[in-house]
Amino acid sequence: MKIKIYTTGGTIDKVYFDQKSNYQVGDPQAAGVLERANVVLDYEVESIIRKDSLDFTDEDRELIRMKVESTPFERVVITHGTDTMVDTGRVLKNIAGKTIVMTGSMYPAQFRDSDAVFNIGCAVTAVQILESGVYIVMNGCIFNPRQVRKNVELNRFEENTT
Amino acid sequence: MKIKIYTTGGTIDKVYFDQKSNYQVGDPQAAGVLERANVVLDYEVESIIRKDSLDFTDEDRELIRMKVESTPFERVVITHGTDTMVDTGRVLKNIAGKTIVMTGSMYPAQFRDSDAVFNIGCAVTAVQILESGVYIVMNGCIFNPRQVRKNVELNRFEENTT
Amino acid sequence: MKIKIYTTGGTIDKVYFDQKSNYQVGDPQAAGVLERANVVLDYEVESIIRKDSLDFTDEDRELIRMKVESTPFERVVITHGTDTMVDTGRVLKNIAGKTIVMTGSMYPAQFRDSDAVFNIGCAVTAVQILESGVYIVMNGCIFNPRQVRKNVELNRFEENTT
Amino acid sequence: MKIKIYTTGGTIDKVYFDQKSNYQVGDPQAAGVLERANVVLDYEVESIIRKDSLDFTDEDRELIRMKVESTPFERVVITHGTDTMVDTGRVLKNIAGKTIVMTGSMYPAQFRDSDAVFNIGCAVTAVQILESGVYIVMNGCIFNPRQVRKNVELNRFEENTT
Repeated sequence: MKIKIYTTGGTIDKVYFDQKSNYQVGDPQAAGVLERANVVLDYEVESIIRKDSLDFTDEDRELIRMKVESTPFERVVITHGTDTMVDTGRVLKNIAGKTIVMTGSMYPAQFRDSDAVFNIGCAVTAVQILESGVYIVMNGCIFNPRQVRKNVELNRFEENTT
Repeated sequence: MKIKIYTTGGTIDKVYFDQKSNYQVGDPQAAGVLERANVVLDYEVESIIRKDSLDFTDEDRELIRMKVESTPFERVVITHGTDTMVDTGRVLKNIAGKTIVMTGSMYPAQFRDSDAVFNIGCAVTAVQILESGVYIVMNGCIFNPRQVRKNVELNRFEENTT
Repeated sequence: MKIKIYTTGGTIDKVYFDQKSNYQVGDPQAAGVLERANVVLDYEVESIIRKDSLDFTDEDRELIRMKVESTPFERVVITHGTDTMVDTGRVLKNIAGKTIVMTGSMYPAQFRDSDAVFNIGCAVTAVQILESGVYIVMNGCIFNPRQVRKNVELNRFEENTT
Repeated sequence: MKIKIYTTGGTIDKVYFDQKSNYQVGDPQAAGVLERANVVLDYEVESIIRKDSLDFTDEDRELIRMKVESTPFERVVITHGTDTMVDTGRVLKNIAGKTIVMTGSMYPAQFRDSDAVFNIGCAVTAVQILESGVYIVMNGCIFNPRQVRKNVELNRFEENTT
């Protein structure tokens, strides 16, 4: 089973640049996470966008959709900023025959206690088992993009029951 | 969906005791991993054995089976030493109506680059999605306990094609 | 020998706030570093400023000088942002009878590979041995504030030979 | 100022070998620690022994003394197992014109919360400032090898007041 992993920036890929006393989206972290976990999976990582997801345009979302539609892989993981992950998830609906799992992290992968490693573990597992469709895998749960929201105060994703 | 997590020792729970210039099985690490990942899951962690899995007896395996059979939870994760995880997995077959996922790690959870966080992420995800049965989730893959072996040289689990 | 540690913010204390997709100066990290290192030292940590050092005013520097002058401790460590550490160091000259060591870090203490733990180890050691005066301890070296500069491209402190 | 660093094994260099369900002295960790700290120091690391210090023989201690005596460097750091660091320190007395600082760690350098990075920071700082003699730098303090003991219960070095 082959897995395609698209990285699009977001907190998970943020690194710190002391020169600017700020941090910015850096190199995709997913590849390093999978190497350190010594996975036996057959996967490819491709960086397609490097942005804070708050800055995503409609064109960015179309690019992601186009990439997912055109890849021959049936199993696709997308790492994405958390602020608009749900919006992109909705743009990806109705792509036949593909299991698409979106994930990201609340803390940059380079932090000591980041949730990035855990979340990537969850995402690559979910993508292997779930039937075709779009899913958001965050905080240990599998969400439907139409029934999830980011709870900013509690800094986590939750089912949207409204 | 509620998840029961049994911990049974093994490398994942090994901590270092300088006094003895050695390390031993310590407190279960799974709870801390799930807290740091800020999971929204409904789960309980219970420590039932604290041993290197090479030292497991038939009674230890019977205890694990008894615990899994008697818990009202339908979704069960077991953290376990890697050396005899496959053996215990085989003892757990034919428990009706339960999804049982075993995992562990090649490096103690307290190591900087341990695979423990990744593997627990994989395990709690798999247990939510898979149908009833026993599974070993290691190195990013979902294995059938009857078709997997630990490749000691490469320090990973692989499908046993023989 | 008693050591007073003043924290004033800077990169070393920066934590990530996902809500704002940014990070800000958070709780002082020095205390946690010293606890994890299990030091036998007699020390007190006091947070007096929480700012990026680029935002320091003359009043901030006067506050630091006043605090150092008025403490009964003869050994003082100051954690400080790297961008204007040298400027504050110059303001602290000619305080009789006190050994003052300034340090900070290029990466936030909460990063996996931050230089913060190393630098705090260097600073608390230097402050115990050096005679009275002001010193900047960064990148493993002991600098005179009048003969050091931050090399922004190489992201380190160097002797200023000009 | 040039610093010679001899590594002799001990807990600081212990890595985990899952194959043997045990850990053993591995590659010296000091070089990686100094690289990650981005030090501006002029130093050389040389691995001369790879043993648990409980297994050191008189010949091992003579080798260390011979190495220290014969190096042209006047500033020498030795990383060493904690159990017999004091014994080796006593063997190194009366080497004229050399500042010798011994350090090690209570937890392997590869642990998340190891004291190794802090201790190496302390040691390379102390060796630059102290006058000639032999010192043990552990738990943030500078000890005389004749007036220190390892407190096994509290897992730290303390002044030996008896």
